[in-house]
Amino acid sequence: MIKSDILIIGAGPAGLFAVFQAGLLKLKCHLIDSLGMVGGQCSELYPKKPIYDIPGYPEIISQDLIDKLMEQIQPFEPGFSLGQGAERLTKTTHGEFIITTNKGIQHRAPVVIIAGGLGSFQPRKPSIESIAFYEGNGIDYFISNPEKYRNKRIVIAGGGDSALDWTIFLSKVAKELVLVHRRNEFRGALESVNQVQLLKDQKKIELITPGQVIELNGLKRLDSLTINHNGVLLTKKVDFFIPLFGQIPKLGPIIKWGLETKGNAIVVDNSLDYQTNIEGIYAIGDVNTYPGKLKLILCGFHEAAIACHSAFKKIHPSKNNTLRYTTVTGVQGFDGTQRMAKPSVVKKIE
Amino acid sequence: MIKSDILIIGAGPAGLFAVFQAGLLKLKCHLIDSLGMVGGQCSELYPKKPIYDIPGYPEIISQDLIDKLMEQIQPFEPGFSLGQGAERLTKTTHGEFIITTNKGIQHRAPVVIIAGGLGSFQPRKPSIESIAFYEGNGIDYFISNPEKYRNKRIVIAGGGDSALDWTIFLSKVAKELVLVHRRNEFRGALESVNQVQLLKDQKKIELITPGQVIELNGLKRLDSLTINHNGVLLTKKVDFFIPLFGQIPKLGPIIKWGLETKGNAIVVDNSLDYQTNIEGIYAIGDVNTYPGKLKLILCGFHEAAIACHSAFKKIHPSKNNTLRYTTVTGVQGFDGTQRMAKPSVVKKIE
Repeated sequence: MIKSDILIIGAGPAGLFAVFQAGLLKLKCHLIDSLGMVGGQCSELYPKKPIYDIPGYPEIISQDLIDKLMEQIQPFEPGFSLGQGAERLTKTTHGEFIITTNKGIQHRAPVVIIAGGLGSFQPRKPSIESIAFYEGNGIDYFISNPEKYRNKRIVIAGGGDSALDWTIFLSKVAKELVLVHRRNEFRGALESVNQVQLLKDQKKIELITPGQVIELNGLKRLDSLTINHNGVLLTKKVDFFIPLFGQIPKLGPIIKWGLETKGNAIVVDNSLDYQTNIEGIYAIGDVNTYPGKLKLILCGFHEAAIACHSAFKKIHPSKNNTLRYTTVTGVQGFDGTQRMAKPSVVKKIE
Repeated sequence: MIKSDILIIGAGPAGLFAVFQAGLLKLKCHLIDSLGMVGGQCSELYPKKPIYDIPGYPEIISQDLIDKLMEQIQPFEPGFSLGQGAERLTKTTHGEFIITTNKGIQHRAPVVIIAGGLGSFQPRKPSIESIAFYEGNGIDYFISNPEKYRNKRIVIAGGGDSALDWTIFLSKVAKELVLVHRRNEFRGALESVNQVQLLKDQKKIELITPGQVIELNGLKRLDSLTINHNGVLLTKKVDFFIPLFGQIPKLGPIIKWGLETKGNAIVVDNSLDYQTNIEGIYAIGDVNTYPGKLKLILCGFHEAAIACHSAFKKIHPSKNNTLRYTTVTGVQGFDGTQRMAKPSVVKKIE
């Protein structure tokens, strides 16, 4: 059982910044995310793209924003349970929430903030017979540890940035690497496309276009697959097949928790504190909706601040919560470290 | 008459960021500020202090944040009327607002956003008889053009950063410079205090502590003043007396416009769009209040975004306003310049 003051579901920019606001109030946070990394959409959908509407950043690369947020929240020592989705919600007799993830881990907290973005990312899967049988048995939809593929025979399928980037990366690691794409044209950063072209010319990878994996074979685990290449069927021995067809966000099991929703979003009370219809559960960032809602990262930051201050009152009903300005009081980390403005001196001039 | 789509009162961080959000919606802004520079409290009260709670900036010097915001809004060509306060509000028969500043300049816009921070800054004035008579006639409360003081005899009064910094700066310009402070101790950055000590040791300035200016003399303009130095009265010939006792923010003439206020803040509808009780007038940032309000810069950014989108609907009731993501569409400046992510290419690998 992992305990925290605030359990945050979703480690995208809004969820991460909530850690900072909670931290200033001396509340400890733990974050769950279905992705294997922090950053949410920023890191999953467009890590290398510039964002222009983060206030104070005329331009910032999406992944850099996440890195900066991670640095900013570091003094408040957030816990992370990555690569697992929030699944079940129950309430203790003390009014605390217990959330169980799809890996069976239980989290307990008096306050839950859902910062789930567009939902948890689910890989877009190719429709091949018996594919479910091989999932985790030779088929991976995302790569959490590239070392797993060292000296292995890999087939990657896909034609976008993700397929291109992992082909480039894993070509240095794998024994054999085949990239299959149903079209001849790839869509991605010019540099990536050119690099894959070079790898192919140097015969460091095999490219099969147009091609489609249509059959998976193996008794206990995947050991070969069949590719339809212009009507010709090719069989390849493989250790891993990695279809990289992108991720689709889905609200997921959260939808069964009794939260009021509208479309794919959770209705919150924006006139007060971005709380949902379940007291103690807040929703911030792209996952929520209210009149006039704008799905902007900067709005998620504001919602995080307001929700954390409301959560503080819920957790410490008798404590006085005076807003402190970091310019005046600095930032005190949970380990006692302190960042602070150089104080003015009072000094006699003689 | 200066026309714009949105007239913004207050050029602090919230007001500046509103220009960006309005600009994305192709609305042109003009800003009025009672200070002689942009940046509001950030530039006036703590320009050199670090801020720790701007999302994505683990630490940023206050003035740097303002500089970044100015760079961010530059494509949207905001107009500025600085060093003048909004004074009178009237409404045209077409439902547009006309705001007249204390310098008599008229501004016309269908929408007004008040981003007035804690109010317009008013200098804290020493209580000396007939001081009002000499204001602008030898007495200045802030320095807009240092050249004005070249080869002049100056007396500065004050013991904080502002008095120290201007003493250092004007010591290179003035013919004679006297710094008067009612205590022996100065409160400021260590470096500034040390520099003033050095100037005194080098006899580049005269220091009178403890001392207080108690009398002002001159028929048409200030030509001498009397300083009480430990009970001894000293008379000094001067061209300018500059009391730098800080600035006090006051809501000012805005308070007479019929806006609903609470304390020193303007009540807005946070359940929708941060509009005041006067349709078409919004209030964002530290100047507004609503249930749960946090006076944080990051909240002002959110309020700016929401207010601008509401303003767009008011200005263009029949136009469709789809939220565009800068990551997807980039930023188009009013002069046709464009900042945009490098597009993906679609390219054949052969």
